[in-house]
Amino acid sequence: MTGVPGTTTASPPSVAPLPEGLDTPALVVDLDVVERNARRMADGALSRGVALRPHVKTHKSVALARLQLDHGARGITVGTLGEAEVMARGGIRDIFVGYPVWADGPKAARLAALHSIVDLSVGVDSPEAAAQLGAAVTGSERPLRVLVEIDSGARRSGVANADAALRVAMAARDVGLLVIGVFTHGGHGYRTLGAGPAAAKDEIRTLAAAADALTAGGFSVEAISAGSTPTGLHAAGGPVNEIRPGTYLLGDRQQLALGAIPADGIGLVVAATVVSTAVALDQVVVDAGAKTLTKDRAAFLEGFGMLPAYPDAVIERLFDYHAAIRIPSGTPAPRLGEVVTIVPNHVCPVVEQFDEFMVSRTGTIVGRWPIDARGRSR
Amino acid sequence: MTGVPGTTTASPPSVAPLPEGLDTPALVVDLDVVERNARRMADGALSRGVALRPHVKTHKSVALARLQLDHGARGITVGTLGEAEVMARGGIRDIFVGYPVWADGPKAARLAALHSIVDLSVGVDSPEAAAQLGAAVTGSERPLRVLVEIDSGARRSGVANADAALRVAMAARDVGLLVIGVFTHGGHGYRTLGAGPAAAKDEIRTLAAAADALTAGGFSVEAISAGSTPTGLHAAGGPVNEIRPGTYLLGDRQQLALGAIPADGIGLVVAATVVSTAVALDQVVVDAGAKTLTKDRAAFLEGFGMLPAYPDAVIERLFDYHAAIRIPSGTPAPRLGEVVTIVPNHVCPVVEQFDEFMVSRTGTIVGRWPIDARGRSR
Repeated sequence: MTGVPGTTTASPPSVAPLPEGLDTPALVVDLDVVERNARRMADGALSRGVALRPHVKTHKSVALARLQLDHGARGITVGTLGEAEVMARGGIRDIFVGYPVWADGPKAARLAALHSIVDLSVGVDSPEAAAQLGAAVTGSERPLRVLVEIDSGARRSGVANADAALRVAMAARDVGLLVIGVFTHGGHGYRTLGAGPAAAKDEIRTLAAAADALTAGGFSVEAISAGSTPTGLHAAGGPVNEIRPGTYLLGDRQQLALGAIPADGIGLVVAATVVSTAVALDQVVVDAGAKTLTKDRAAFLEGFGMLPAYPDAVIERLFDYHAAIRIPSGTPAPRLGEVVTIVPNHVCPVVEQFDEFMVSRTGTIVGRWPIDARGRSR
Repeated sequence: MTGVPGTTTASPPSVAPLPEGLDTPALVVDLDVVERNARRMADGALSRGVALRPHVKTHKSVALARLQLDHGARGITVGTLGEAEVMARGGIRDIFVGYPVWADGPKAARLAALHSIVDLSVGVDSPEAAAQLGAAVTGSERPLRVLVEIDSGARRSGVANADAALRVAMAARDVGLLVIGVFTHGGHGYRTLGAGPAAAKDEIRTLAAAADALTAGGFSVEAISAGSTPTGLHAAGGPVNEIRPGTYLLGDRQQLALGAIPADGIGLVVAATVVSTAVALDQVVVDAGAKTLTKDRAAFLEGFGMLPAYPDAVIERLFDYHAAIRIPSGTPAPRLGEVVTIVPNHVCPVVEQFDEFMVSRTGTIVGRWPIDARGRSR
């Protein structure tokens, strides 16, 4: 590794050899690893007595959501109504939209339709959004369940404190919504290496205060839900009775660097072909560009992904369909035409670029699974 | 504007009001602007006596490719065989794959099938890739046409000099390919503000040398092709007889900052809704995150896109489905529930995130057009 200050120098992860004959770029899922990841997280949640409600935005696949449910997840989390619709059509019944849905216009009708066919719950962080949700489901046979979002340090969405959580809960009750709990996302656990456990403490403290405020206000607080892969099981315990990690199932370079997944936890790689070596001796170009790897890059990661077989190589520049990879002098380089394995920085937006997973076991393709909710960002 | 050193302080572009009732996030194309952009570039090429072969990776739409052809483009450029397949199925007949295609495995059969149904030409920058191409089309009724790629300063792909171009051309001829010309992509015209015209001079000089070398080697050099939006018409003249700009049709914030498109050239925007204002007074959150805007960001652009109606706002942090927008103190902020217009930094990967364009004229939706080649990155 090149030892750039603040970047990770962890050993490359172990990944299975690629199957033969792939048309590249391709997303290759290692089902053995994925099943192990699913089992580990489910066992960890079970042993701590908390429910697991994985965020399926990572994989957007009905088959992988079912795999998580089969391993013991209670239900799923989604980020958009579109993901909820796809998962509902796939037969999944217990769905939490962990997002401050603004349900006006076309979204009001979509929300009402979903609410009529599955066990839906939705996030809310303002009285105004609560009013929209209430209006959207007016006339439903049963109340729509909501969880109040509280910010625990990510500074993205969610109310700022427990008093504000109670105000939103009361506003929600006033418009006929059923407040069942509180949730947070400790996204600040992604910011620096090793930040996960401290962010988990923030999640626990913040959720506990909000839950207490709601209980004091006469609410029955059924769900106290924390969520991210870096905070993961660190948040499971005490008042928290549900966790919502997502990335743990497939793994990525960022989670590995953060210490949030084990070295054998990379369950998805990108297969790419070296298409050009013409420009310079210290550069190879592969066919996985910005429309495959995306330009997602944490401050502590050098380049736009890593090649486990060429740990010194740096994916330095991305174009739509080209990645220019720098090969430091004296280190091995892949040859023209070689198919290489790339571990992406952040798996979620990479999956979004594809229509299907090539599913493998021990280096053999055993299926092609659709990425059912790809493109469902609304 | 906040005046960060090295970032652009250009005035916000003029964009039409959004149509009512959009489900967000949505991609909204302004057909009046797009037609004007198409006409301007076609007229510019015509008046300089060069062919226009736009790169359709920007929009991936058969309808928009046809619009370009109807305005005078000679054919189209694509970046992948998948894009070529979609455009061929859409009835487009003259297709150049401006990419160093490595045609082994599944790609060999796909290339041969395309070659049998459309007027295909393909890029090549090594004798090895030429050998693969030749093998892929063995037995075809007519030779596959290729253009030798030469690097003019982008340092991405393409041979390093005219001698190397001649060597690749001879290798291609030896395996039965028909060498019809040379091409380059002056991608270094994107690197700094105002770099386009100088990069265009590099394109012209490099292509002229390569064309001379091929002519001296006995080749009939029919196509001398330069290509990018920043170099655009600057490269059209002298030896260059074809240009391949792409982004000019839809426009984006980067091209505007580079001075490569006019202030009225933004033909695509993202519509997004403010879903949360709970965390802090100086922040609003909209529902266009990294899976919509992408994390593409040139060094000279602050944030992940711009809001023409709120020119001081900075799209500071992107999550999968959230954008956290900083509102500097004392400047106006959009209200909760407001639908805002965002001009993306780089339009090409943003289009990739969607299945369809909402097509508008003067603020009214007149159609929904599929993004036919979305996801066809191989």
